[in-house]
Amino acid sequence: MSEYRGYTGASLTFLKESKVKIGDSVKITEDLTYTGIIMPRYENTDDNHIAIKLKSGYNIGIEIKKIKKIELISSEKIEKKSTSEVKSDSTLPKILLLSTGGTIASKIDYRTGAVTPALSAEDLSAAVPELAEIANIDASVLFSEYSENLEPEHWKKIAEKLDSYAKSDYKGIVVAHGTDTMQYSAAFLSFALAGYPVPIVLVGSQRSSDRPSSDAALNLISAVRFVVESNTQGVFVVMHHNESDDLAVAHLGTRVRKNHTSKRSAFQTIGNDPAFLIFDKKIEQNLKTDFFKQREYNPKLNFDKHVALVKYHPGYNPKIIDFLIKSGYKAIIFEGTGLGHVGKTMYEYVKKANENGLFMGMTSQCIDGRVGMNVYESGRDLLELGIIPLSDMIPETALVKAMWALGNSTNAEEMKNLMIQNIASEFSD
Amino acid sequence: MSEYRGYTGASLTFLKESKVKIGDSVKITEDLTYTGIIMPRYENTDDNHIAIKLKSGYNIGIEIKKIKKIELISSEKIEKKSTSEVKSDSTLPKILLLSTGGTIASKIDYRTGAVTPALSAEDLSAAVPELAEIANIDASVLFSEYSENLEPEHWKKIAEKLDSYAKSDYKGIVVAHGTDTMQYSAAFLSFALAGYPVPIVLVGSQRSSDRPSSDAALNLISAVRFVVESNTQGVFVVMHHNESDDLAVAHLGTRVRKNHTSKRSAFQTIGNDPAFLIFDKKIEQNLKTDFFKQREYNPKLNFDKHVALVKYHPGYNPKIIDFLIKSGYKAIIFEGTGLGHVGKTMYEYVKKANENGLFMGMTSQCIDGRVGMNVYESGRDLLELGIIPLSDMIPETALVKAMWALGNSTNAEEMKNLMIQNIASEFSD
Repeated sequence: MSEYRGYTGASLTFLKESKVKIGDSVKITEDLTYTGIIMPRYENTDDNHIAIKLKSGYNIGIEIKKIKKIELISSEKIEKKSTSEVKSDSTLPKILLLSTGGTIASKIDYRTGAVTPALSAEDLSAAVPELAEIANIDASVLFSEYSENLEPEHWKKIAEKLDSYAKSDYKGIVVAHGTDTMQYSAAFLSFALAGYPVPIVLVGSQRSSDRPSSDAALNLISAVRFVVESNTQGVFVVMHHNESDDLAVAHLGTRVRKNHTSKRSAFQTIGNDPAFLIFDKKIEQNLKTDFFKQREYNPKLNFDKHVALVKYHPGYNPKIIDFLIKSGYKAIIFEGTGLGHVGKTMYEYVKKANENGLFMGMTSQCIDGRVGMNVYESGRDLLELGIIPLSDMIPETALVKAMWALGNSTNAEEMKNLMIQNIASEFSD
Repeated sequence: MSEYRGYTGASLTFLKESKVKIGDSVKITEDLTYTGIIMPRYENTDDNHIAIKLKSGYNIGIEIKKIKKIELISSEKIEKKSTSEVKSDSTLPKILLLSTGGTIASKIDYRTGAVTPALSAEDLSAAVPELAEIANIDASVLFSEYSENLEPEHWKKIAEKLDSYAKSDYKGIVVAHGTDTMQYSAAFLSFALAGYPVPIVLVGSQRSSDRPSSDAALNLISAVRFVVESNTQGVFVVMHHNESDDLAVAHLGTRVRKNHTSKRSAFQTIGNDPAFLIFDKKIEQNLKTDFFKQREYNPKLNFDKHVALVKYHPGYNPKIIDFLIKSGYKAIIFEGTGLGHVGKTMYEYVKKANENGLFMGMTSQCIDGRVGMNVYESGRDLLELGIIPLSDMIPETALVKAMWALGNSTNAEEMKNLMIQNIASEFSD
């Protein structure tokens, strides 16, 4: 790590002139006095601030113009830690740990206090020594991104990488992933890799491993145990079940949603219990359902981003629909109100979208429950205008599925058939 | 009701020539045979179908071209039922029941099986005789719309009507409302009528009163009891708490969300328990909080619809932001991922929106939990780009509040101050 990583212009000059660098403990006096460690900065930031990690663990930005005094308290030499050696036991099953980034793949450097997003998968498995007793872990870094920055192009890269191991002797694959958009990636992999011969688990953490309440270790151990012990197939998300440290669960990749911004139990299966309970001593299948409706492995790795997710609300401007049509969108997933409605003000443009050949699917912003477009006249009107009800598919999954279905079909009929077919439990029984 | 209400063109001709009308029991033969009652149709429907209510309670549309035979089973004379007389007891408190439409204000005509959306408030109180023992009810119909068709203009009409009763001797006001967008209306009224002297309750039903599982009666009785007995102020939503018929609850109007498409317990307070529990014998305050932070009644009834709710997801096209800027939008409420993020692909247009003076507020698509934009670098980047974190305000409430704040302020600073001020418990303590 560079001594001034991320600092440019005025802030870089300031640090150099003050003879302090990243990792140094400093005392800064402006209107208030702060003691903390100078942190690296990341792209897209200005050069007017320096970042300090306080003892509380919080990072703050301080405007350099306001700094009256900066004093060096202690300075640490920055060196690359050598990769830990991982034990290998040939009697254990072999799994792959693929890292894509996120909090779980972040290393806290205890000297600098910085969260480094580029923790290698080797480091990850070395950081949790229990893993070596469960499986022989091959580790690989695909990329290192916080998941809010992932795009469908990243989904495809992950899918291609996993596809390349479809005939390997891995008992399962664990994908370390940021939690922000984990459910979107899980949905894509569920469709793209339907019928994959071994279980694929996405795992993340809500709190980085330097916090006493971190969920990283339990989640990772549970994910590895799940792919080794569950004897299942399909794409799952493994995370904490509750705020205690004794139970992790596996959610179906198409039915999971991040329902809390910060809790360790943020991830929930919508409309049902989680698919598997991962206890300390055993793994219990909780849902009596075949996860992958499609049994044969027949990867379909493409996507087409021309899909909009339209959350309807009072005052929604129907001209946005017109803009989508004119911008070449090919599908719209509505998050309608209640049983799957949009207001009458939308009808004209819904009709136009239909005439222009856009696929339109209806989900509900209620998130839980099924759309039911035959109950009220307004639902029936929308059916007549060409909107396809998507039962209890959750809106985000429907969005991802539409991108996937568009990318892997050659005409509207084929795309629609993919949308209404139950491929990976995106529709509950 | 007209004998042919809603039928036009070919379908009207078909009914007349077949000598059958709305309300008649008929047997229809096409590929299959159906027995049911001819239903009225509503606007925006074609003239190729007739609507039949089957014995199962379901309505279906049958294409007239496919009908081989239609036989009259029995015919009922349609007559307007006289308005029931409502008892008056001068020792009881006086309340107003204002009807805006929705399932709760729908009358099932047991002869036709049709759901008539124009049930008067008198009819509503007459339909539930228990109400006359709780209060003297004045009833008024403001409009009759299913709530998916309500617009901010309707919110304002409701608010103006309520404002006109601010100095009346009503002990409270109950607003019958469709459930689809009830939370949006409740949020608007919470802001527009902050400090209103008596409680205002929105009440709806998930299942119309002809179904054995209807929640209409309990919800209505609970709403009336609540405004009479609770001795509180503010805007609430009163609905079933669970699937049993023994407990209704009152949710804060700014913290409530419809979280299930069909369950009677669809409405939930986000991030907390409901404000009040409405037991059979008593009403219990459940949250120890002042609901209305603003105590003085100072109505602000305007709105400005130039607000977009942008739910970010991988593959979101940032040019939609550009379209919003060019279309004269004045505010964007983001439903970000996790703690309140959008991907790096958005930064350029977020910056542009900021430069163009748009207010940008951040909420989370997780719905539960608070945004925390200081935890990760990406959150801090967005703060620097001018996005205002909105703590745990739920996205739909933030959208409504932004429309309201824009409509009742004269400049950006004033609007922003309204947004970050806690007016009606839209921020939890």
